[in-house]
Amino acid sequence: MEISQLGEFGLIDRLTKELPVVNASTLKGVGDDCAVLRNRDTDILVTTDLLLEGVHFDLTYVPLKHLGYKSAVVNFSDVYAMNGTPRQITVSLGISSRFTVEHIEELYSGIRLACEIYGVDLVGGDTTSSRQGLVISITCIGEAEADKIVSRSGAKDTDLICVSGDLGAAYMGLQLLEREKVASAGQKDFVPNFGGKEYIVERQLKPEARRDIVRELAEAGIVPTAMMDVSDGLSSELMHICKTSNVGCRVFEERIPIDYQTAVMAEELGMNVVTAALNGGEDYELLFTVPLHYHEKVKDLPGVKVIGHITKPSLGCAMVTRDGGEIPLQAQGWNPLK
Amino acid sequence: MEISQLGEFGLIDRLTKELPVVNASTLKGVGDDCAVLRNRDTDILVTTDLLLEGVHFDLTYVPLKHLGYKSAVVNFSDVYAMNGTPRQITVSLGISSRFTVEHIEELYSGIRLACEIYGVDLVGGDTTSSRQGLVISITCIGEAEADKIVSRSGAKDTDLICVSGDLGAAYMGLQLLEREKVASAGQKDFVPNFGGKEYIVERQLKPEARRDIVRELAEAGIVPTAMMDVSDGLSSELMHICKTSNVGCRVFEERIPIDYQTAVMAEELGMNVVTAALNGGEDYELLFTVPLHYHEKVKDLPGVKVIGHITKPSLGCAMVTRDGGEIPLQAQGWNPLK
Repeated sequence: MEISQLGEFGLIDRLTKELPVVNASTLKGVGDDCAVLRNRDTDILVTTDLLLEGVHFDLTYVPLKHLGYKSAVVNFSDVYAMNGTPRQITVSLGISSRFTVEHIEELYSGIRLACEIYGVDLVGGDTTSSRQGLVISITCIGEAEADKIVSRSGAKDTDLICVSGDLGAAYMGLQLLEREKVASAGQKDFVPNFGGKEYIVERQLKPEARRDIVRELAEAGIVPTAMMDVSDGLSSELMHICKTSNVGCRVFEERIPIDYQTAVMAEELGMNVVTAALNGGEDYELLFTVPLHYHEKVKDLPGVKVIGHITKPSLGCAMVTRDGGEIPLQAQGWNPLK
Repeated sequence: MEISQLGEFGLIDRLTKELPVVNASTLKGVGDDCAVLRNRDTDILVTTDLLLEGVHFDLTYVPLKHLGYKSAVVNFSDVYAMNGTPRQITVSLGISSRFTVEHIEELYSGIRLACEIYGVDLVGGDTTSSRQGLVISITCIGEAEADKIVSRSGAKDTDLICVSGDLGAAYMGLQLLEREKVASAGQKDFVPNFGGKEYIVERQLKPEARRDIVRELAEAGIVPTAMMDVSDGLSSELMHICKTSNVGCRVFEERIPIDYQTAVMAEELGMNVVTAALNGGEDYELLFTVPLHYHEKVKDLPGVKVIGHITKPSLGCAMVTRDGGEIPLQAQGWNPLK
């Protein structure tokens, strides 16, 4: 169905029909000039992401439902990275004429699924036409207890540096998707070959936010001194934390968690897997620092690995290689303005 | 200066340097995964707008500073329309390669000016490249006392319908700007002719949100039963209020406030000025309803005009013409998806 048949209000009515409300803080959702929220006892976290077709995603190989899911989840990830809980999102879409109502419903189904899984209410947005390509702008509102909020600036000398999951998988998944896209060019009925590489493809197309890690930390009674999510690459994020905390760091090459499929893919493409893990981006893992006395506690947390420690600022930021040498970290992460 | 010389973080540092914080609810602004806000005693209002080049604005005649100002103000207007006060905004920009650092600083200077005038803090955003054209996504967070929030759904039979300022001016300003754009095509050193029409050009390029009306209402002790801002046109907004409130309405053609310049421009272009006032859009005036017993109070409020009254739903929505006839209202307002 053509979107013009429904018009703006018709489309919005259709997309937002029977939206559930699961959070007590959501007083009023879609349908007025503003959404109305109430957070009497907690602080409010706000984050926003703008995703543009041809810059952040390629619809040749990204299914619309996955795109919707990912667009929401990357915002949730920013809220978890402050040690908070995402509660509401607004979704703005710019839609070009090649999209049908069914396309946008597919995109929305992914957004709604992410909201359902993470317990988030969709409370508003804006829908308009776009002259070229799909535009997705999502703002997420979360909450956190005032004394539990973790910023990027609290890392201290001797703190342990920890990271969740494994790194570089989303980037190697992207390389694989791009390779198959090139291979498929001009071929009808092309079947991409993802055999044995499903994990890295999923990490690229359907990332998850590490709510589980935030819960584990809370249950263990640990409040990190600094935390952020790994969206631009470990190297870039570590340098952010060190700069804003006015400290240095040492991470150990041999401690950087890398999945087997990530390593195999890097080998196939003749790429250095550690470089991919340091600079790949889109991992949406949590990078955090904890005081040294938490060592026994954090080393036993499932899905968490201690990869190094914070130093005095004069020592700078470096990776200690397997042979004991030091390589200065560089923020080579994905730069959307270069 | 090319934006690529600075990169994303360099550009953001430059744009957000020395951002003031004027609201006590803004605990942490730009620079972390999320902004942190605190509203212990009030409810929170959230609204968002997506503006795309070629759809919502034409940089042939819209100066970037005005565009920035307007992009922020239209969001503030949504918060005032709930009887709230805007406090924070996030600003996401998609920037194509034809824009320089100076261009984006110009845009930002307009956003910052709007924030300064309306007492709003810029607390976050996202900045990325765009493949074609400028993308602006702004989310505004406001606050309101729980018992003072005004939605669209509270209008009751016999309520008075009021509107601030005058209508149709922004639309006629747009027609004038488009006419001068066509006249200028291919001509060097073309000087557009806005003589005697400065007001309607300003209404299009630099609208204001009616904070003054919200304050007047508060000082007069009036809480409207329903309110929204006129962005799509009076006719469309009235029908929204009537639909969500389950009522009908009568507005009187002779009561619709129209500025002299709006009328002159409509005459020049052979357009019906009442149609422009009903369907023009982008007025950002406040449309609200109050109980009948407030008649004496509202009729003396500066800048407010009583234009009609709410009826039983069975009577539908209509305009009473000067000759006493009735024309059903139609939502012909600007439809960005048609």
